[in-house]
Order: sequence, then structure tokens, then C-alpha cells
Amino acid sequence: MEEFKFIQSITPKYYRQPSIVKGIGDDAAIIRHQQVDTIMTMDTMVESVHFSEKTTTPYHIGYRALAANISDIAAMGGTATAYLVSIVIPERWTDDQIQEIYRGMMALAQTFHMDLIGGDTVSGTALTLSITVIGAVQKDKARYRSQAKKGDVVFVTGTLGDSACGLHILLQEKDSEHYQYFVDRHQQPMPRIAFVEACQGIKRMALNDVSDGIANEANEIAAASKLLLEIDYNKIPMQDKLNDFSEQQRINWALSGGEDFELIGTISEEEWDILEKAAKHTNTPVTKIGTVKDRTSKNGTAWIYHDNQYKRLEKSGYTHLKG
Amino acid sequence: MEEFKFIQSITPKYYRQPSIVKGIGDDAAIIRHQQVDTIMTMDTMVESVHFSEKTTTPYHIGYRALAANISDIAAMGGTATAYLVSIVIPERWTDDQIQEIYRGMMALAQTFHMDLIGGDTVSGTALTLSITVIGAVQKDKARYRSQAKKGDVVFVTGTLGDSACGLHILLQEKDSEHYQYFVDRHQQPMPRIAFVEACQGIKRMALNDVSDGIANEANEIAAASKLLLEIDYNKIPMQDKLNDFSEQQRINWALSGGEDFELIGTISEEEWDILEKAAKHTNTPVTKIGTVKDRTSKNGTAWIYHDNQYKRLEKSGYTHLKG
Repeated sequence: MEEFKFIQSITPKYYRQPSIVKGIGDDAAIIRHQQVDTIMTMDTMVESVHFSEKTTTPYHIGYRALAANISDIAAMGGTATAYLVSIVIPERWTDDQIQEIYRGMMALAQTFHMDLIGGDTVSGTALTLSITVIGAVQKDKARYRSQAKKGDVVFVTGTLGDSACGLHILLQEKDSEHYQYFVDRHQQPMPRIAFVEACQGIKRMALNDVSDGIANEANEIAAASKLLLEIDYNKIPMQDKLNDFSEQQRINWALSGGEDFELIGTISEEEWDILEKAAKHTNTPVTKIGTVKDRTSKNGTAWIYHDNQYKRLEKSGYTHLKG
Repeated sequence: MEEFKFIQSITPKYYRQPSIVKGIGDDAAIIRHQQVDTIMTMDTMVESVHFSEKTTTPYHIGYRALAANISDIAAMGGTATAYLVSIVIPERWTDDQIQEIYRGMMALAQTFHMDLIGGDTVSGTALTLSITVIGAVQKDKARYRSQAKKGDVVFVTGTLGDSACGLHILLQEKDSEHYQYFVDRHQQPMPRIAFVEACQGIKRMALNDVSDGIANEANEIAAASKLLLEIDYNKIPMQDKLNDFSEQQRINWALSGGEDFELIGTISEEEWDILEKAAKHTNTPVTKIGTVKDRTSKNGTAWIYHDNQYKRLEKSGYTHLKG
């Protein structure tokens, strides 16, 4: 498709967000955020590195790439409002496939009333999707990883390990009876924007999204807050359906599978009630999985209780818990 | 280099812009623009498509990629404040080369007091640089392509064709006596931010940056404003040094060479004085090259006067003026 026509085909007919002063069609886009701060995040996914045509349809490539960015906005406590897309298109990709990538993004964008406001289209040898997502958050209500405090509850939303299990099924067990559930969780994760919005009344909360696995993200919160995160392996919420797989697989997927785009956070016991109400209101499962402690020699790291002993939870998770 | 160390190496020690609430190091960056609108633009450059190691050092790859984005902010009438960088790194690129790309960006960013606030680093087979630049502009002071009016003067900044000539010299005439001047103009273009800032007092101005060649950008202004842009070829400012090259080369480079990152704009005769003062104040050459007209049958297109006749100036420029 000729570039001009292509851009026309992806240009919104109207903008959902009143903050969009100028969308696609000039040298740049213009946004007017009056009383709120602007959040900005950018991620890149490359064919054969971050996804394969074997496991991901063009629609889901677009959907997941945008979901990953929206999840970062949620992890900052914000609402996603707009996005820019730069795409590198190899010759062997058809117009239909490229349109499908955009349809996947647009479907998810519609859920959150987000607008496509710009980007770039270039040719190249590997399909590469770079997405910038813009969000809004009330002043001084951003949720940083550094905001954990001693005595906080550590919690996660949803269940962990589903996305990694879905990828496993796509690659090795296509006849699994749980195919649809886990593959959907892998291909169409739903960022926790609604829950985060409902949490606006909470004074303080550390937050991170589960993109690499909670082993990694728990360590990130511990490091940023200069405290110790203790997690009880037996409290980590997992789908019952995961019991059909081996203990080793479950550990691996739940701790370091990643891409669940759930949230891990910490909050004071006093505010837990507000969080539970927000969770109920938005139909979001939340589970207490640990505690924030202050132990000079261990601050900055995460630990896990498993098989009757505490072990250091390395960022990579898995290898240190097996056997 | 390990990713964490790499990110540390590019993380600013402090942020120059007071609007940066949170830079690199959490799930996303946060910006607080109080009384101004936020401009956003995103561009991608791919190895072998947009640049070649033959003509561009890693330093200049970074510099030019960022310059192209800053130029888009200038063309909206704004000031560039921050940027996010996603880079796809093939194995054969060394750490030093990657650091050089960032050094090129950082040198230019320093000129404009811009901060690096985020991005992504992934592996892949072709070096790909996606940059998102954020800018600020006073409310309702954005300069759109659609703001040309009948009777306006058409002007450009600087001289045109230099960058294309520089590329030609790098590829075919490395012994040219003008090597340094033109190659510098190709490798280190300077976006016209200072000039645009000095123009804030101007009530109305249509603006576009010369990234593809003025043949293209004049047509974009004509189309967006639904008017006719008439340009006099003999008034187009060109370096005297360009006279050492053929007429055909000059036409080609000046009209459709592109990447000069100069500005083409239109402004009323009444405000021309203010523009001239801004130009003088910022040491920016400006030249009147044409007029905006209202001719129902030709509106939306650009025309050029050359060799005693008016011809339609196609977006591609060159081919229609030769011979």
C-alpha cells in the first residue's frame, strides 16, 4: 500500500480524548494536560526476538505490544490516553497483515478510549514495532517502585504464570485441554488500568507491572525502596488449571515467566481495606503474598519462603528454587 | 555490555528540565507541563535504509536521528524538552559504537537542554533507532501547516540542498574542495529551534520543516491550507559553493534533496518585520521565495516559476523541472 493511503487508513476519524489538540497529520501531535501530569513510556518488539509468527497472529502482535506499554502506564498509577506507533515493515509482510497489527492495537485502544496520534512507517528487513504510550496521572499520585515502606503488605493482582503457560502450550502442547484459557492469557493480556484508577484514593502504594516475572519485579521494588521484600511461595496466586503441569514448570512460569501484565505492589496494612474495595469494584483478584522488612544486610533484595526455608529470590527466579 | 550497566551509562545524573518529574528508572517517565501544551513526535531510522556506515559514523547516526525529531518540534513552533530512545542492537555492533550513537544524541540534546527520560534496548538483526521527542508550546501558539492565508509571503530559513550535496560528496566526490562544509551540513544539521522561539510574538504562521525537500513540504502546506503556493525558483537560497555542481544537481538537491532541516513557512506581509527581527536576533537567514494565492482550480497544490514558465511543482520536485 502506498504510504499516504496507509496513513489515511490508520488515521482516526475523530479523537476520543479531549486532551488531543492535534493528532495525526502535521509535523507532530499536541496534547493539553491541564491539571494532571503526563506519563510517557516506549517499548520495542522485534520479529523473531519478541514474537514469532508461529505463536502470534499479526492481530495479537499489535495487541500485545500495545498492552505491554499500557501496563507500564498502569504500573505508574495512571490512565493511558494516546499512543504513537513506529513500524518497520519488511517486503514479505502483506498489507493485510500490517492492517491486522493495527486492528489488534485499535481494539485494545478502544477499550481504554485511547487515540493513535502519530508515528512513522519505514521499510526494513525485520518487522519491528515501537510504541510510545502517553498517560495521565493526578499530580503527585504516581506510584513509584521506591514507595514501599517497612511493614507494608506485598500483593499481586490476578494469577501468575498463565502467559508463560500459554506460550508453552502454543509451542509444545497444542492439544492441551486448557488451550483456550492459557493461550488467551498469553495473546490478549488485559492491563490493570481499571483497578489502578479505582485505587486513586490510596495515599501511598509502590507498584510495578509483571512483565519479566515477579522474581524480577519484587527485586526492583526492593532495590528502589532500599528494603527487603519477603514473599511466601505458597501464597502466590496460580490458576488451578496449572496443577496439570509439573511443580518445576509452575515455579518457573509463576516466578519468572513474565508477560502476565498483572501488578505487584506494596501498601500499608491501614490502606489495605481501600485496596480491597477497589479490587472488588473492578472485579480484580488481589492476593497478599508477603511483607516488606527492614534488614540492613538484606535491604535491596527479595527473598522467598519455599519448602520450609527462606532463600534469596534472584531476579531470574526459577533456577534457584528448583531441586 | 550487560543491559543494566548500559542503562546506567546512559542515565542522566541530573535533569535539566524542571518539568521532568520522573526520568529513567521506573515503569515510565513523568512530565509536568503546567501552562503549555505538550508536543510529541516519533521517528525511526533503520540501518541500510536511512543511513549507511559508509557515510555516517555512529555519532552522526545518533545526532541526525535526534535532529530530525527536534526539527519536527520546531516545525510545530515549539521547544524540544525531552526524548525517549528505543534501539535495536545487532550483535556485530560493538559497545563503543552504541555508546557513540548515544554520545551523538547527547551532544545535540545538551545544545537544547533536553533530557533523555526513557526508552528500550532490544536485540535484533538491523540497527534501528526509534526516537520520541517531547516539546512544549504556548497554548494556541502551535504552527500548523493549515495556517497559510491568501496573500502570505512564503519563506525558507537557511540554504537548501546542502545536505543532499553533502551526501553526494560522501558517496562520489570525497576529494571535493567543499567537503567539510557540505558534509557537516549533512551529518550535523541544526534544527531551527532558536528561530522558532524568537518568533513567539508572531500571531499566525504556517510552518513545516524541510525533511523531504521543499517540493514536498510546499505541497503539504498548500494541501493543508487548501490554497496555492507559488514559488520562484530563482529566489530559493542556495550556497554559492553549489555553483560548482551542475544545474540539474542543484535543482534536484534544493527542491527534493531534503534533510536540510530548514523551515518553510508562510506569514502575512504585516508580520514580516517581526519575523525579520527574530531572524536577525537568532542569526537565521530568511528568504522570501513566493506567495500564497487562492485559485480554486489549483488550490491544494504548489507551483514553481522557472525558465520563464509556471509549472506544477510535484511532491517529488526534480523530475518535472529537468530538461
